[in-house]
Amino acid sequence: MKLICQLDQNLPLPMYEQLYRYIASQISSGQLTFDCKLPSRRELSSLLSVSESTIKSAYELLEQEGYIRSSQRRGYFVNRLEPLRDIQSSTVTAADELEPPNPLYDFSTSASDASIFPFKLWSKLFREALFHRPELLQRGNPQGEIELRNALSIFLHQYRALNAQPQNIIIGAGADYLLSTLLQMLPKNSIVGAEDPGYHGIYRNCQRLSMQINPIPTDENGISADALYNSDSNICYITPSHQFPLGISMPVGRRRELLRWASEKPNRFIIEDDYDSEFRHFSRPLPALQGLGLPGQVCYIGTFSRSLAPSMRLAYMVLPDSLMHRYKIEMIKSGETVSRFDQQTLARFISEGYYSRHLRRAGNIYARRLRELLSLLLEIPNTHVFGEQAGLHFLLHVPQHGEAELLKRAHKVGIPLHGLSEYYRRLTSPPSTLVLGFAGLKDQDLHGAVKALRTAWQL
Amino acid sequence: MKLICQLDQNLPLPMYEQLYRYIASQISSGQLTFDCKLPSRRELSSLLSVSESTIKSAYELLEQEGYIRSSQRRGYFVNRLEPLRDIQSSTVTAADELEPPNPLYDFSTSASDASIFPFKLWSKLFREALFHRPELLQRGNPQGEIELRNALSIFLHQYRALNAQPQNIIIGAGADYLLSTLLQMLPKNSIVGAEDPGYHGIYRNCQRLSMQINPIPTDENGISADALYNSDSNICYITPSHQFPLGISMPVGRRRELLRWASEKPNRFIIEDDYDSEFRHFSRPLPALQGLGLPGQVCYIGTFSRSLAPSMRLAYMVLPDSLMHRYKIEMIKSGETVSRFDQQTLARFISEGYYSRHLRRAGNIYARRLRELLSLLLEIPNTHVFGEQAGLHFLLHVPQHGEAELLKRAHKVGIPLHGLSEYYRRLTSPPSTLVLGFAGLKDQDLHGAVKALRTAWQL
Repeated sequence: MKLICQLDQNLPLPMYEQLYRYIASQISSGQLTFDCKLPSRRELSSLLSVSESTIKSAYELLEQEGYIRSSQRRGYFVNRLEPLRDIQSSTVTAADELEPPNPLYDFSTSASDASIFPFKLWSKLFREALFHRPELLQRGNPQGEIELRNALSIFLHQYRALNAQPQNIIIGAGADYLLSTLLQMLPKNSIVGAEDPGYHGIYRNCQRLSMQINPIPTDENGISADALYNSDSNICYITPSHQFPLGISMPVGRRRELLRWASEKPNRFIIEDDYDSEFRHFSRPLPALQGLGLPGQVCYIGTFSRSLAPSMRLAYMVLPDSLMHRYKIEMIKSGETVSRFDQQTLARFISEGYYSRHLRRAGNIYARRLRELLSLLLEIPNTHVFGEQAGLHFLLHVPQHGEAELLKRAHKVGIPLHGLSEYYRRLTSPPSTLVLGFAGLKDQDLHGAVKALRTAWQL
Repeated sequence: MKLICQLDQNLPLPMYEQLYRYIASQISSGQLTFDCKLPSRRELSSLLSVSESTIKSAYELLEQEGYIRSSQRRGYFVNRLEPLRDIQSSTVTAADELEPPNPLYDFSTSASDASIFPFKLWSKLFREALFHRPELLQRGNPQGEIELRNALSIFLHQYRALNAQPQNIIIGAGADYLLSTLLQMLPKNSIVGAEDPGYHGIYRNCQRLSMQINPIPTDENGISADALYNSDSNICYITPSHQFPLGISMPVGRRRELLRWASEKPNRFIIEDDYDSEFRHFSRPLPALQGLGLPGQVCYIGTFSRSLAPSMRLAYMVLPDSLMHRYKIEMIKSGETVSRFDQQTLARFISEGYYSRHLRRAGNIYARRLRELLSLLLEIPNTHVFGEQAGLHFLLHVPQHGEAELLKRAHKVGIPLHGLSEYYRRLTSPPSTLVLGFAGLKDQDLHGAVKALRTAWQL
């Protein structure tokens, strides 16, 4: 039995903790065996030149956790421990921690322009919540702060013609989280019909929850109502304001066809994902499908990721009464997922009018940038742009090369891009089309970015 | 056709939007029917006394959305719209929005003492992140900020003897969210064994994900290893540091039995929920089970809800390599759920030593409060306290009344309490036992609270 161990006064661990860990490891590894007697406190104290009270604390801890037992007057003895089978350590290697390098020019569809964010105002509102409302430290309403839901209810009515009562709104840490929550609340054995091409997240979430999902083809007006009727889906997931990725604004006729489909059976629901409806560059925002009627059949999901800050994880959904009922029974106990301080900050940001001002300002900046970018891109011969009416991305058709070649060449010069074919499930993508986001580009970089692409593509 | 509508300059909506909404609603409701011709712009302009450009904007919007079509030189005509079937509006009524009234004395197990929270320091660190790192507005690493994972890795090693590499840590918006994420990553058809009595959340999450869950009885050392062996579970969910709700600290012998169980089949995992291990009042923190060995079989979940602020939704889990591998394939694309600013604030709070100082301070305050509360409660004849060694709750046995009666009488005087029997699934609860949290009580209220209970119980 080796009891000479290194105790180091310079370590952040107290001496008795070091001693405790050492003896525990000796017992665990089998070096100190069952019924072996430990040295008395006095003995070990002089052996290690530490105080008896240090030894006492370590022994007490060991006894408390069951490593050793004390026997009156006889001293301390090692307990019998279940031997641990040697198992090979896992052979799976964790993936690299390497963050992707910063792109030379950022055409991603999820970026945002940091220079537009109202840092000072946000900080002021946040501090006021922090210092004046300490009660916000405690658990809040799992559905979200009532002040935020009230503010959203009014805003959504005014700006998106939504029928959203505060009691039908749920706040959550990102649209993807809310989508997953919603899918778990739908009737058992629901089958989802989703746009093809479409948002990866709906396919990913359904797969994870073992829900069946049918890709439904889209035409020039968005998801095909005929194909939806011919599928066995009872849930229809759509992005009607600005179809992702095609950029189509669904006309009212198709919207009503879908609402009619939903109304025909009680278990049918439409999920309207309005991920970037805040920005329309060449016309007014379209009213949301949710407000057109049948509020009992439409679930609406919105987010502040595109309009305010991608990283703050502020999103919401508006559910019909029947699903709110299920939420209150099944989901509400999970608790809120967004900091109450952030929620209260956002509530004031909206209700005191800052958000609409911010949207106007951001909308102007983005529209100007889009116009300039489009005019530069359209100088490339034979290119064609579509889906640019709204949102923060558009499609660019460049017929001179195959899509893979376009991506490869851009990637080589440090510009990662997405091709349209990535988003197709069953249908074939139109050839040589890129999905370009422009919120993350800097105004002063537009010329350089287009020039770099033209050089890479030799066009 | 009635085209005299009220346009109101004082509304926040622009005039053309009001006109657009009015005409759209007339078409939707069938008042304006298919092929009906709209008045010319000039005509309507003089009829409504608004500018022609207002009419033009409204008509353009209506056309864009497919409500009307323009026919060259002939004017605007109403399109055919899919009729919407009349459906009865949903009869489910949303539950009341009433927040539960503030309790007279707060014995809940999820509260925290707001007076301990370092408001000024937090605000300072938050502002520094906000003003000096605008790049934090963009999407971050879905697994969590690397600075926070580094800080946690070191902290967990020093304070909980955890083997937690930064690349095995995932940050998320609350322990419940992380638990749900983890359950979705476990091998298909996994069966969970969980403590009985135990935390409601594990039962709730399994039910939602349609996973089978077995309640496993507990004895004086925590979950029964024999019963676990006799069940068909391959996942074992436990709270070994301070069993919820019983307050048992699992001795090392039982811990090793469980680790041995886990090692015997490759698909077995232990979920160690360490929800309030930061506070031990009468001894040093026990090291986590995760650090005892077999890091390939143990998933560790921790949270800052109890130790810092319940409302900030800051939690983390440490997964073995094999599950990290699945996470990177299946879950990582969902994105982060905690604001990057909060994550960076917390990272500095930990790595600059503020968190350990905060824990010492909070631990002293809570231990003093606990001692005083216990001494007051034990003056009630025949009462017995257990599970008080650690954490922020303990159990109180009051034999003079039945549990329901104890709860009812306390509730009547404005003190909501929880009974132990709430947490039992299959076993029978020991009679007349209350689960009392003390983090939300104020020091100056202890006498009053105990007095109120004694009066209510006539003891």
